[in-house]
Amino acid sequence: MTDLVPLLAGAVAGERRALARLLTAIEGGADGVRELIPSLFAASRGAHLVGITGPPGSGKSTLVNALATVWRRRGRRVGILAVDPSSPFTGGAIMGDRIRMMEHAGDLDVFVRSMASRGELGGLAGTTWIAAAVLDAAGYDPVVVETVGAGQSEVEIARLAETTVVVEVPEMGDEVQAIKAGLLEVADVIVVNKGDRPGAELAARQLRAMLSSVGGRITRQPPAILTTTALDGAGVDALADAIDAHRAAARAPDQAMQRARNQLRRAAAEIGVRAATAHPEWEELVEAVAERRVDPVTAAERLVGLRS
Amino acid sequence: MTDLVPLLAGAVAGERRALARLLTAIEGGADGVRELIPSLFAASRGAHLVGITGPPGSGKSTLVNALATVWRRRGRRVGILAVDPSSPFTGGAIMGDRIRMMEHAGDLDVFVRSMASRGELGGLAGTTWIAAAVLDAAGYDPVVVETVGAGQSEVEIARLAETTVVVEVPEMGDEVQAIKAGLLEVADVIVVNKGDRPGAELAARQLRAMLSSVGGRITRQPPAILTTTALDGAGVDALADAIDAHRAAARAPDQAMQRARNQLRRAAAEIGVRAATAHPEWEELVEAVAERRVDPVTAAERLVGLRS
Repeated sequence: MTDLVPLLAGAVAGERRALARLLTAIEGGADGVRELIPSLFAASRGAHLVGITGPPGSGKSTLVNALATVWRRRGRRVGILAVDPSSPFTGGAIMGDRIRMMEHAGDLDVFVRSMASRGELGGLAGTTWIAAAVLDAAGYDPVVVETVGAGQSEVEIARLAETTVVVEVPEMGDEVQAIKAGLLEVADVIVVNKGDRPGAELAARQLRAMLSSVGGRITRQPPAILTTTALDGAGVDALADAIDAHRAAARAPDQAMQRARNQLRRAAAEIGVRAATAHPEWEELVEAVAERRVDPVTAAERLVGLRS
Repeated sequence: MTDLVPLLAGAVAGERRALARLLTAIEGGADGVRELIPSLFAASRGAHLVGITGPPGSGKSTLVNALATVWRRRGRRVGILAVDPSSPFTGGAIMGDRIRMMEHAGDLDVFVRSMASRGELGGLAGTTWIAAAVLDAAGYDPVVVETVGAGQSEVEIARLAETTVVVEVPEMGDEVQAIKAGLLEVADVIVVNKGDRPGAELAARQLRAMLSSVGGRITRQPPAILTTTALDGAGVDALADAIDAHRAAARAPDQAMQRARNQLRRAAAEIGVRAATAHPEWEELVEAVAERRVDPVTAAERLVGLRS
């Protein structure tokens, strides 16, 4: 068993190798991760936690790269966790670091890590957020969590990030329009990327119209809507401004309470699963459910320790 | 409180109104849903549970519609749950039944219901699967769960459905290619839809090549790869054949055990969340986490009742 405490101390002291090893241990679900959490929590430097998401092909990675350039110019140290579509069988991230962030490869103040999204309890299960806390403790700020998705994973991000950026592309069909409408309610900042394509301004106007039609249902500040062209950097400075400006709003007490609720729900779900799978009757009850001798809910209650 | 037992009896007896009311109660999280589960489980008629998923714009709904036509011709009664991108604030499904399945509107042996995917514990949280069990008890077979997504929601389907169909479209970028590679490992049947477009046969060949490259990592039967054109019905008979043929493989003991494990994990997660949110100290600990006086994992352990 790797002792994680010295790795955390190393990461906090700025050692990239310790940081990388700690993230590997966390991603692999090493023993000792649970015990590390209070120290990790205590080591937080209060980094701004930013989620960036959007449908496949919206150019999120290029945009995150361009944002990192802007933030570096502003003297920020940027941590990036790219949650990749993962293989549920091998558990590994598919895209990997190889195609990411080549531009910042020599810059020690940009740290990029690809993480595999695990299927067990939703796309951004605990490990990603523990990894984000590690980057915070290591002095990166902002810490960006980038995910691909169309629906749930965006909602997950919004529930746990302080500022959620949703990246859209101009041209899209009806189904995507419906998804967009859902995202309007979780986005703090909306970016229409590939602004050089015909239709970008139209798309931004449509989003503003949608937004005003759902306005009454949104209880917080309406999202900013911006247009960028990640490839040449147009609009990216304004996007960094909008993200930075949202930090204060995200830390208002009601927003912090809402985030805490979501963090607690997610942690409680993971505790339930751990309790069930560690129970001595786990395999026995799996078999009983597989053979339809008991329903899954009754069996799970017994495993978690309720109605025992 | 609506008494759900008579509604279940009515649904089993073929009353559509009782069925619709029961599904509404389940979707709304009515009191009594938990108590209904053992009866529901006992009322199962063993319907084939089929998950159909794919990226936005892949034509899943049209394809499900075309499949329903084929199954009806074969004398099957078809139940369809369309899990729509939902509004996390209003909780409602966005697309609704309005644009779905107009073709089968007068057919009492096709039952279609849109469900909102809830964000709390992942896209296909318990309610969808309870609703699928209701359609099974009401005599529909197959019961199809259709979702949109690109990543997690597909994995979720695969974990709970007996047969998972992944719908692809020919033209797509790198990021989507990576997602596809991940899906190859969860799909039982892969459909390249919009087969009339240039590139459909090429896409099917690429998928077969990808599949042979990951073949060693897949422990079960490799997925069938088919081409369809949902709009004119080409290939849809063969797709229905492939789905029907997979039923026996899906019910082999090892597959049933794997599904049971996933059902139990999901149920355990939901039990954890319910235990936490019902705890008298819930709000107090939400506040403590929001004010960073305690880390979320330690707080959640206290709420769920471990390390108390």
